Amino acid sequence: MNYSVIRYVLGSVLKFEGLFLCLPLLVGLVAREESSLAFFFTILICLSLGFLLSFRKPKNMKFYAVEGFVSVSLSWIVLSLAGCLPFFLSGEIPSFVDALFETVSGFTTTGASILSEVEPMSRCCLLWRSFTHWIGGMGVLVFVLAVLPSGEGNMMYLMKAESPGPSVEKLVPKVRTTAFILYAVYTALTISEMLLLFFTGMPLFDAVNIGFATAGTGGFGVLNDSCGSYAPHLQVIITVFMILFGVNFNCYFLLLRGKLKSALCSEEVRVYLGIILAAGLLVAWNTREMFSTLGETLRHAFFQVASIITTTGFSSVDFGLWPQFSLTILVLLCFIGACAGSTGGGIKVSRIIIMFKTVLKELFTIKHPRGVRSVKLDGRTVEHETVRSVNIFLVIYVLVMFGSVLLVSLDNFDFTTNFTAVVATINNIGPGLEKVGPASNFGHFSDVSKVVLIFDMLAGRLELFPMIVLFSPLTWKKRK
Amino acid sequence: MNYSVIRYVLGSVLKFEGLFLCLPLLVGLVAREESSLAFFFTILICLSLGFLLSFRKPKNMKFYAVEGFVSVSLSWIVLSLAGCLPFFLSGEIPSFVDALFETVSGFTTTGASILSEVEPMSRCCLLWRSFTHWIGGMGVLVFVLAVLPSGEGNMMYLMKAESPGPSVEKLVPKVRTTAFILYAVYTALTISEMLLLFFTGMPLFDAVNIGFATAGTGGFGVLNDSCGSYAPHLQVIITVFMILFGVNFNCYFLLLRGKLKSALCSEEVRVYLGIILAAGLLVAWNTREMFSTLGETLRHAFFQVASIITTTGFSSVDFGLWPQFSLTILVLLCFIGACAGSTGGGIKVSRIIIMFKTVLKELFTIKHPRGVRSVKLDGRTVEHETVRSVNIFLVIYVLVMFGSVLLVSLDNFDFTTNFTAVVATINNIGPGLEKVGPASNFGHFSDVSKVVLIFDMLAGRLELFPMIVLFSPLTWKKRK
Repeated sequence: MNYSVIRYVLGSVLKFEGLFLCLPLLVGLVAREESSLAFFFTILICLSLGFLLSFRKPKNMKFYAVEGFVSVSLSWIVLSLAGCLPFFLSGEIPSFVDALFETVSGFTTTGASILSEVEPMSRCCLLWRSFTHWIGGMGVLVFVLAVLPSGEGNMMYLMKAESPGPSVEKLVPKVRTTAFILYAVYTALTISEMLLLFFTGMPLFDAVNIGFATAGTGGFGVLNDSCGSYAPHLQVIITVFMILFGVNFNCYFLLLRGKLKSALCSEEVRVYLGIILAAGLLVAWNTREMFSTLGETLRHAFFQVASIITTTGFSSVDFGLWPQFSLTILVLLCFIGACAGSTGGGIKVSRIIIMFKTVLKELFTIKHPRGVRSVKLDGRTVEHETVRSVNIFLVIYVLVMFGSVLLVSLDNFDFTTNFTAVVATINNIGPGLEKVGPASNFGHFSDVSKVVLIFDMLAGRLELFPMIVLFSPLTWKKRK
Repeated sequence: MNYSVIRYVLGSVLKFEGLFLCLPLLVGLVAREESSLAFFFTILICLSLGFLLSFRKPKNMKFYAVEGFVSVSLSWIVLSLAGCLPFFLSGEIPSFVDALFETVSGFTTTGASILSEVEPMSRCCLLWRSFTHWIGGMGVLVFVLAVLPSGEGNMMYLMKAESPGPSVEKLVPKVRTTAFILYAVYTALTISEMLLLFFTGMPLFDAVNIGFATAGTGGFGVLNDSCGSYAPHLQVIITVFMILFGVNFNCYFLLLRGKLKSALCSEEVRVYLGIILAAGLLVAWNTREMFSTLGETLRHAFFQVASIITTTGFSSVDFGLWPQFSLTILVLLCFIGACAGSTGGGIKVSRIIIMFKTVLKELFTIKHPRGVRSVKLDGRTVEHETVRSVNIFLVIYVLVMFGSVLLVSLDNFDFTTNFTAVVATINNIGPGLEKVGPASNFGHFSDVSKVVLIFDMLAGRLELFPMIVLFSPLTWKKRK
């Protein structure tokens, strides 16, 4: 294990976090809020610790898969530990575990909250909450990539460990350029949404926060009822942007380069949009008697469907009261998640497609034992290695999920609460059902359960392997 | 597709069912029950249809995997359709779907019932209910194997399609002899349990029924409270036999041949017993305040753990009232299931072991990218083919499970009911939680949901592939 590289990466992450924290500090100073002080101290801690760790450049920049996984998971843990300090130091969230839960929920773009109401919070804390979504959405390590003095191969390991989806594609030959392009698209889309919301009537502060939270598919709002009290047209805008941020960002890159046809041909994006359409219509049919007009029914149905499949977690109504069929559709959407290469969580549409095709291939083989058939995506054969890792992903996913449900059940809440709490955190959605439903929060759980759910959020965001590798004794065992 | 072989197999299955039905007929005649008439007519139908279908021997006995899967799944459907006639014709279960549900639940050794009370049923019907467990436990096709005039290779496909577990081992070179040995062990163990129960104070009729239901890991009892009102020592005997019937039958074969050491070395059996011990102790610790003595606590804890992991589904208390931690352990045990090559359902311990080892292998590969490590079971390398099929099994399992939960949710019961109803049927357990808990039954569901659950029971018993192959359009499509 090359420890000095890991140390260097952690230092860089902390320095970046210090810079990011300046935005809420600025807002706090303008609003003359007392909590600004907590931000000031946190920035001091981040910067000094960051410079200390990254002062000495590692001699040996050799970087393999295991270092990639370990530094990504440690970076996210350090990021969260530092990021929760403003909440804790300002006293706005008095319990440290709660502050950590809220921050991890932010960075992992989960949007699950332990707060029963958010409106009393200071503006700087509210902004930091939704800003963490934006930072975590695209991944912090991509920033670090830009400063790491290293060769291309090394970067790929970091990017592979942090990026969502079964395989990582470089858009352009250089990883660094790829990262820049992705962030440019991300920033442009975010600002477009903020402006659109602001100019159609949303208060500026709300528009900025909702913009950050939609972009990262996070879900932290600034009102107690999430998006329930915004005007219908604003909810429609948010719905559209939630869906846009769930699309594989490679598509936007292709669009930018004028390759309209290959952008539209992406099998994953078509399946993703198809699922949204089908689920939205089914939910609308199922909830038709709960709303007065067809427009209202469709608006709420598609808002919730988009919010859940992209794992954002906003709500426009308390869907916990909807009929069981709609709820089950929403629970299933949690698992599916958004496209790979987007900011959304879940298993990812492309993995689901690969799983389905693997099953079809097996059925084909049973019928034609000597026939040859390969799993294809977008017309290209999916490598055997990818199919295997998708299958192993599902195995780990199921194991982590059931292990967590078991630990959380010690709190003796009902099965639906425990199960959907774990599902909502591991898929980085936010709200679950029953006691963790859209009208409720995660504050009821014991600290032990909160730590389990914190682990699930991180494991889910980093797609399981980095956290599993970090906590596996195998990783730390010296080879005989 | 070789249709004449399938026709021949179906005919043979019906003839065997006609013979099996003579046992409840006999009991009905001795008890002078009116329902005997229904059995008489059913036997007539089975035998005449059976002879009609199997009268002409197929010229071509060529038999491949696809024919194996199709004939196994069709056999089980035909078996259930004929088997439900006595309940329906006698009017003891007036709805045909209900009668079919009860019969499929019997043959698949699920033990889920649509009856709110069983005590008013006639003795012949009760005996047929538990006898279906015994018949379905080991698999009917094994009987058919004994009469099929065909080569060895063909039989292996049938046995592979019907036997539980990731891979089938022939104990002796001839499949037919293997089948005979398995049935001999099965019969001997069943009779031992019946005698033991009878001589320690259980009424003969109860002892025979409980014996059949334990052997098939089914779960149909003859009393409304399942096993709740039997004396403590009887419950202990039942617990021990439930555990014994969940062991891989190969072990008994090895024991018979005096190979004590290799029988005890089976990794699957050791893990299976380890899980029972750990789960039993945890449940006992968790429920310690519900019972007055340590003995009582341990007895009920181990009874329920053995009942659920072997997917029998008996209950000695209404465990639906237990704390959530114990319930979650029981739900997890549902998924694990018994050993491969036993009469139990679920995913099977050996598959779980292979999954865990695949994950460990992956972690090893991340650490040592050039290292070579293979998945081993009992010291032997598990074939790549088996590992792959275990992974695909999990994928299909998850897809079928969530699809079923979605369809069942149309009845608008709570999520726990829907989820555990599907889990209890696909794993062939019997009781779930809430509305399908041990003190309740599956009668509330609509006919549509019952049909979905019938599919799940069959798919679960036959380990998914045969039912999926039967209903896959790919199977019936002519190759271009």
